[in-house]
Amino acid sequence: MIRFDSDYIEGAHPSILDALVMSNLEQHIGYGCDEYCERARNIIREHCKDVSLGVEFLIGGTQANVTVIDALLHCYQGVISAESGHINVHETGAPEATGHKVIALPSADGRLSLEQIKECYNNHWNDHSHEHTVQPGMVYLSCPAENGLIYSKSELTSISDFCHSHGMHLFVDGARLGYGLMSEGCDFTLADLASMCDVFYIGGTKVGALFGEAVVFKGEELLRSFRYAIKQHGGMLAKGRLLGIQFEQLLKGGDDCLYFRLARQANSLAKKISAAFGGKGIPMWIQSQTNMQFPILTKEQQRILMEKYVPELWCKYDEGRDVVRFCTSWATKEENVEQLCKDIEELL
Amino acid sequence: MIRFDSDYIEGAHPSILDALVMSNLEQHIGYGCDEYCERARNIIREHCKDVSLGVEFLIGGTQANVTVIDALLHCYQGVISAESGHINVHETGAPEATGHKVIALPSADGRLSLEQIKECYNNHWNDHSHEHTVQPGMVYLSCPAENGLIYSKSELTSISDFCHSHGMHLFVDGARLGYGLMSEGCDFTLADLASMCDVFYIGGTKVGALFGEAVVFKGEELLRSFRYAIKQHGGMLAKGRLLGIQFEQLLKGGDDCLYFRLARQANSLAKKISAAFGGKGIPMWIQSQTNMQFPILTKEQQRILMEKYVPELWCKYDEGRDVVRFCTSWATKEENVEQLCKDIEELL
Amino acid sequence: MIRFDSDYIEGAHPSILDALVMSNLEQHIGYGCDEYCERARNIIREHCKDVSLGVEFLIGGTQANVTVIDALLHCYQGVISAESGHINVHETGAPEATGHKVIALPSADGRLSLEQIKECYNNHWNDHSHEHTVQPGMVYLSCPAENGLIYSKSELTSISDFCHSHGMHLFVDGARLGYGLMSEGCDFTLADLASMCDVFYIGGTKVGALFGEAVVFKGEELLRSFRYAIKQHGGMLAKGRLLGIQFEQLLKGGDDCLYFRLARQANSLAKKISAAFGGKGIPMWIQSQTNMQFPILTKEQQRILMEKYVPELWCKYDEGRDVVRFCTSWATKEENVEQLCKDIEELL
Amino acid sequence: MIRFDSDYIEGAHPSILDALVMSNLEQHIGYGCDEYCERARNIIREHCKDVSLGVEFLIGGTQANVTVIDALLHCYQGVISAESGHINVHETGAPEATGHKVIALPSADGRLSLEQIKECYNNHWNDHSHEHTVQPGMVYLSCPAENGLIYSKSELTSISDFCHSHGMHLFVDGARLGYGLMSEGCDFTLADLASMCDVFYIGGTKVGALFGEAVVFKGEELLRSFRYAIKQHGGMLAKGRLLGIQFEQLLKGGDDCLYFRLARQANSLAKKISAAFGGKGIPMWIQSQTNMQFPILTKEQQRILMEKYVPELWCKYDEGRDVVRFCTSWATKEENVEQLCKDIEELL
Repeated sequence: MIRFDSDYIEGAHPSILDALVMSNLEQHIGYGCDEYCERARNIIREHCKDVSLGVEFLIGGTQANVTVIDALLHCYQGVISAESGHINVHETGAPEATGHKVIALPSADGRLSLEQIKECYNNHWNDHSHEHTVQPGMVYLSCPAENGLIYSKSELTSISDFCHSHGMHLFVDGARLGYGLMSEGCDFTLADLASMCDVFYIGGTKVGALFGEAVVFKGEELLRSFRYAIKQHGGMLAKGRLLGIQFEQLLKGGDDCLYFRLARQANSLAKKISAAFGGKGIPMWIQSQTNMQFPILTKEQQRILMEKYVPELWCKYDEGRDVVRFCTSWATKEENVEQLCKDIEELL
Repeated sequence: MIRFDSDYIEGAHPSILDALVMSNLEQHIGYGCDEYCERARNIIREHCKDVSLGVEFLIGGTQANVTVIDALLHCYQGVISAESGHINVHETGAPEATGHKVIALPSADGRLSLEQIKECYNNHWNDHSHEHTVQPGMVYLSCPAENGLIYSKSELTSISDFCHSHGMHLFVDGARLGYGLMSEGCDFTLADLASMCDVFYIGGTKVGALFGEAVVFKGEELLRSFRYAIKQHGGMLAKGRLLGIQFEQLLKGGDDCLYFRLARQANSLAKKISAAFGGKGIPMWIQSQTNMQFPILTKEQQRILMEKYVPELWCKYDEGRDVVRFCTSWATKEENVEQLCKDIEELL
Repeated sequence: MIRFDSDYIEGAHPSILDALVMSNLEQHIGYGCDEYCERARNIIREHCKDVSLGVEFLIGGTQANVTVIDALLHCYQGVISAESGHINVHETGAPEATGHKVIALPSADGRLSLEQIKECYNNHWNDHSHEHTVQPGMVYLSCPAENGLIYSKSELTSISDFCHSHGMHLFVDGARLGYGLMSEGCDFTLADLASMCDVFYIGGTKVGALFGEAVVFKGEELLRSFRYAIKQHGGMLAKGRLLGIQFEQLLKGGDDCLYFRLARQANSLAKKISAAFGGKGIPMWIQSQTNMQFPILTKEQQRILMEKYVPELWCKYDEGRDVVRFCTSWATKEENVEQLCKDIEELL
Repeated sequence: MIRFDSDYIEGAHPSILDALVMSNLEQHIGYGCDEYCERARNIIREHCKDVSLGVEFLIGGTQANVTVIDALLHCYQGVISAESGHINVHETGAPEATGHKVIALPSADGRLSLEQIKECYNNHWNDHSHEHTVQPGMVYLSCPAENGLIYSKSELTSISDFCHSHGMHLFVDGARLGYGLMSEGCDFTLADLASMCDVFYIGGTKVGALFGEAVVFKGEELLRSFRYAIKQHGGMLAKGRLLGIQFEQLLKGGDDCLYFRLARQANSLAKKISAAFGGKGIPMWIQSQTNMQFPILTKEQQRILMEKYVPELWCKYDEGRDVVRFCTSWATKEENVEQLCKDIEELL
């Protein structure tokens, strides 16, 4: 069996494991105050072209999301998200457990438009009883979104501008950021993101690391206190160096860093899969340029591919067909993709 | 100006004020342990035909809602509600502030159907990654719903059965319960509610009291600990007798109690308003039998009635028309309704 | 039986009830936006000599405390309090339920000293692992404290200065503020408090009102958003006018307002009780100048007085004796105090 | 410089790294549902002689603590802990952030006695206003405690019995459990702990793993729902296998497992350090049998040892002396201990 169900089914890129093994017996102080973390912070600041940025390393996405949300919002504020946003559907109510309502807006393709955000904001503030609804204090975007799509630089810019002129923070969930940045058509960089967002993170778990998300932030309050929030939310790893070591390996080397190379490769393998489906006239649900592809398959087609490749059943499409997700990753082997493509070709 | 915008714009029924004045200089211990509260508890148990019920008095609806939700749910559980449910839209995220997600389901008329609840429950438990969504631990119904409609006894029975066979609590928000129980077509009683719900409350604020909601509950955990939850959520009134005195006045006298008489009168005045609109061929948004009526008015009709009667603008209906809410209450004067009806007759 | 156990065992001063009865059938919009509340706000601003202050009316002390704490603190911040502080011992963990640790400091007499606050602050920030402890974000003082003592103006000034030069808010719980302000030896005014505190409240429940605490605050964040926090914490009374009416009655009339007169009278009756104990050589636990007196009584003395006057057993003093609390209030009758004093005289 | 400041300054035991490297490219489903985790669960159940136990793997101690506390307690319940307990002082208020008060009891040596727990319980329930204090719902013990001491089996048994006959859960924080279990004088086993506790955990982070705590629990509610709580608190590692692999390596092999061997070795090296101080007549603050030793050092002694070995300054002892902590670990080299001992010998 060859798994294509997600991008976190293997361990880490071998060079990361090597670095962990090499440094294993060194003695370092804990909690992310070691020299590996410090170097990784600086590498990220260079990518972002902003030496004043705060950078902290957390273990996973849910933890990163709730720590940011809780650290930035006042008790009476909520966070605007697409209905399909990870914080709204797949975190067991973790944001609400910190006291903050997720204000979920419908979204056909997983992204939010500026118009939706404006309308939501206005509805909350223009309501004659506006104190009876939560105050929108943050906009949460996933980039790429849960279905692989990304925003354009101009979309992000206009959302960022609106947020900042209306007292809201902009937070971008980058659990799969590498795949987004390296996708065809992506017209923004890490430095762009850093300039537009109050907080975003560079996801490691799904792009080559064993685990880890690098949270990048600015603003006096967070710079002074984000580490408190991390500790309080259980996210401060005792052996913090494990995170610093991984992000140093992933991001050193500028535009040719491992993180970008792995993402590009995964995207290119995903494109082959997409092309194979296209070649058979099998429609795609979403025109994703990233490492996730969503063909619409009949039950029979699913039966054949599921058994051998266990893609994830995503959602129902129509009576006879479902949307199914195929993920590539930094670890996907070319020969496995070729075998999959051959099997796609032979589908009825 | 004669206000018809809500049912909490006056003080309390005079007989309640009289009772407060009469008892004013008596000395009583605090926190709802006085004899007035005890008598009111027993009166409610008689209405409910169940001497084992717990009864506590809270000040307002939001407080009652969050105290019940937080006291009954485990940290990882959420509460199913109609999208229009008060807890979802008009409590500034108060349930989420206690850590619990409101699982909001769409609802055309403010009520939830058994089918919706079933589907929601099944979606959460059948999901292959069900631990990544909150666990549905409670169903919240408003009765009457925010637009004046009530459930039938058989609807409530089947929802109650489903909840209890699937590990969920049933909680009925009765902020306007009197108007519901006394409405034409209501086929259930307080005793029925008490047998079907884990918790419900009898709203006083909107039906004759200065303030106050009588929360009725059962179940070992709540019976042992609900007063802790009340205190923790800031709902334990120092001079608790103020609540006991009011509910004794409202509910003593069995089926002929003040609470029921006031509600019947308000419903009957609301019916006159509805008939006046009907006489003019003005359609109603919802066929409400309770004290709230929702005509669909043109901008010009609104302009005329708004100025004199300040009904509440409820929602947009179509390009030229909006839904507007007229509320009667225990305090509505017959002559004011007659004047309103005359003005309706003269509308274009 | 004549109760001396607390200051909230009667209803409200008759002139307040009169005002409620007089206004009962008037129609007013809800949630504290009515004209009574507006007038009461302005009266309080006049007392405080600061027209820019925010003023909102809440129902009870626990609710006021948690709403202020949660609205002002960031998620990782805690509140410094005396161990005996109401928020630490008698609110069922309500502050913690909003996510904030109470950093409790020992206190022999219920008050905190500047030195204690400084030391606590320094311990938290100087700790080599300071991010592993909550950040002190607020100092909470009760005035009078739970045992009837007040702070001097110079103590409050120096604590206020330290707080504001170290990024902490100063919050004064004034559940019994009237008794404090009117006590012999009190050298500060409402205007002084308003200038030193970020937030304080003027307690009505224990000083003449049916219920109600007037929260006075400043600071951009609270001025913009405190009403959200009130609603979220279940403290926004539908018929908000009930609070406005009461505080208008209590505080109109400047230095000769009802609130001050009632408090002075209660203090003076308390002094008589204290003198009676003194006359018998019975020691007082604390030299309180306010409405609470704490004689140290033998079991036999307790037996005699408890039966007739039910004072509150406060704490153990030594093997044979306990501290007992006698409270007077706005409603205490002079003849009852005289009878108590006679019975004290006749004690063994 | 040779660090003796803590037991988490190195990576992981080499055999654990080997296992991670060996399994790196295998494909496994996420979130702890893989076969490594399943095998590790069964190995733990064997150690505990109870196949019905729940076992889940979390990343760190703070996360384990708050997840357990929040999952088991009702909203109005608090957790009893020694004042020096990790949850009370070094977790940035994380338990309070989930809404639960830590009821901190003074403790001279870091442990709680049955008598203290009884008294605390009785104080809370016998209080005439018991609903105004949090309800004690859990006892939290650290074993070994923060200063290296352990409980005896009979102490644990009597505390366990009291908890279970009074509606409280018993939760043992085993962040350093290995060192405790393998210490001289320890008279209980994993199986004993499992039978006495509702929940405890086997700490990996400080005893050989890169990171990870194995939480062992029973009880219908937790068995059904603990994974929800983990996800909600951000503790569900995407590549859960990383935890399963580590605990399998640590605990396979029964009484001769790596976990026990590493702990025994660290304890024995600690004993050498203790003996060296004893040989110089330098008193120990606590007679710890585990991997942490607490000599009382003069400023001059500190100066000499600090520079070379960076032990942790623990607390002030008297005017001229402080308590200092030396930690050994699975990674401590014998030659480094010998060098330290020689330097101790040469102290003034």
